[in-house]
Amino acid sequence: MGEFTALLHIKHGIIQAPMAGGAVTPELIAAVSQYGGLGSLASGYVKPENMRQQIRQVKQLTSRPFQVNVFVPEPIPDVKTEDLAFWEKRLFVLPKAHMMPSEQGLWDDFEQKINILLEEEVPILSFTFACPNEQTIHCLKQKGIFLIGTATTKEEALLLEEKGMDAIVLQGSEAGGHRGTFLPSKGDALQGLISLISDVKPLCRVPLIAAGGITDQAGIKVALQLGADAVQIGTRFLASQESAAADVYKKAILQAEGSETAITRLFSGKRARGIVNQWMEEERVHEDRVLPYPVQHVWTTPMRKAAAAEGNSDQMALWAGQGIGRIHSILTVEDIMHELTQT
Amino acid sequence: MGEFTALLHIKHGIIQAPMAGGAVTPELIAAVSQYGGLGSLASGYVKPENMRQQIRQVKQLTSRPFQVNVFVPEPIPDVKTEDLAFWEKRLFVLPKAHMMPSEQGLWDDFEQKINILLEEEVPILSFTFACPNEQTIHCLKQKGIFLIGTATTKEEALLLEEKGMDAIVLQGSEAGGHRGTFLPSKGDALQGLISLISDVKPLCRVPLIAAGGITDQAGIKVALQLGADAVQIGTRFLASQESAAADVYKKAILQAEGSETAITRLFSGKRARGIVNQWMEEERVHEDRVLPYPVQHVWTTPMRKAAAAEGNSDQMALWAGQGIGRIHSILTVEDIMHELTQT
Repeated sequence: MGEFTALLHIKHGIIQAPMAGGAVTPELIAAVSQYGGLGSLASGYVKPENMRQQIRQVKQLTSRPFQVNVFVPEPIPDVKTEDLAFWEKRLFVLPKAHMMPSEQGLWDDFEQKINILLEEEVPILSFTFACPNEQTIHCLKQKGIFLIGTATTKEEALLLEEKGMDAIVLQGSEAGGHRGTFLPSKGDALQGLISLISDVKPLCRVPLIAAGGITDQAGIKVALQLGADAVQIGTRFLASQESAAADVYKKAILQAEGSETAITRLFSGKRARGIVNQWMEEERVHEDRVLPYPVQHVWTTPMRKAAAAEGNSDQMALWAGQGIGRIHSILTVEDIMHELTQT
Repeated sequence: MGEFTALLHIKHGIIQAPMAGGAVTPELIAAVSQYGGLGSLASGYVKPENMRQQIRQVKQLTSRPFQVNVFVPEPIPDVKTEDLAFWEKRLFVLPKAHMMPSEQGLWDDFEQKINILLEEEVPILSFTFACPNEQTIHCLKQKGIFLIGTATTKEEALLLEEKGMDAIVLQGSEAGGHRGTFLPSKGDALQGLISLISDVKPLCRVPLIAAGGITDQAGIKVALQLGADAVQIGTRFLASQESAAADVYKKAILQAEGSETAITRLFSGKRARGIVNQWMEEERVHEDRVLPYPVQHVWTTPMRKAAAAEGNSDQMALWAGQGIGRIHSILTVEDIMHELTQT
């Protein structure tokens, strides 16, 4: 763990998972970095200029290193008109008719974000949903930026290393939120963390960051023992005082058991793990009709936002990992970092 | 680990997973016990008198303790005639027309098996698919038999302890073969081993046996560190010289990567993890039409047997856990036990 923390100029090998969707505030990110971990700004679903503003806010709060995570664009498959019509009937609140992701600026702002990240001199970037193209990697590496990729299989980890990533997040099946899977897989690409680290460790030379279901020192210890150089922790930080997650979301995290999450494509079109709620249960039979990511995301956004505003967790996406059963209190980031690192 | 091994009179806290289906020979079981682990005879799909015969064969080969695993019967839901007709069209080889599980003696032989196990004085029994009823538990405990239950969630573990089980197998989502889930779950009941052990350990007083994806000393070490008292290992023993698994099955284990397994109900009607093959891929869209366990099992048996006899792995059930990517050789049980325990 020593080498990796030295490389990133952080005290503890604890990365706060970049969780897109608005819960991760500049205060949360800065506090994680301030207490010796690596805070992560999630730029997914954030407009480029808002991302710049958030970066500046974090910088005002801490001089410690933090990272920014960027979704790497994928081609969007064709959307069938009948599938759009299907969801038009089923969603409680609808987006503007036929609104497509590009109109939202959700998916076409990758280069714009990379330019801002260069301008703002963010020293560490992580990527999800794919490996950036060679030109982008080359350009970022020339500026000395530390690059972190996200893998869910050994094959993905090997590809990311080959393409020049400086470290790799290994996302176990336990992880909350979106799966980072980007290569076709013969199986379910849902390997548990013990197997995934054990498979990748002998083959990769770059530092490995274990992610998925880790909430406490015991989890950190076994991840490091298996060969990880650091850990990435999400759900535990969602249930912090600095988190802007809706109160009903935080409450759901405190109440749910570890067995009460499931993976669904219903909210966004891409597989993600969350606490099972009413909408997930009711729509489960329609998983096959789901629109491709991020179209389904755009279409369910108004419903999810309205539900959050009403304090109604039935129609929200309650992303959470399998460690959720061991989170029983809303703490400050300071207390969480203390719990995770005290000796 | 010391207490549990003393309780069972074994040297190493390593239990060979009871894998029903014919791969686990008396020689394999006896060898595991002989080299200090706990061999397990899987009585599932075995006729009661054949089980007695196998028990006697193991006893002839070793005087060390071994256990017998028994499937606990569940009520079989009604089978829809149109679903039977559906699979009649899709299966390559058919069973005798309308053959139901009871005609196979698959599911109605629980009491008969328990009586034989008492007669044969088997000192350790484990149960899968449910908790035996109170009368059975009472009767077995009066004879001093050590009882092991199987849980996939915290809720199941707590119930099994309350009902009097002396130890509990915690089956992580990584595990190959059938899921032991027996309580309804709000979520997917597919917790990874790190989360599952961490959730259960503070609440259960009985010894915990970690199962799922463990193939090597590193896996054993972290399971014990998280609070398990022993481990249960399956796939590694399938790929042994003593295993009667078909050669194509063993070959598939050696070749597959950790990401190439998935959970399916297609072969038996109950969720189980195996290496994805042609039939699983082709029929994946029909998961919803699957007949209830064990009816689907009975109906796919002729196809699976014919495929195995032909050395064709496309239509077999290639049950395997997520540790499969780290199994690269067919060893003797002696060598496997040595690899797992050498200091």
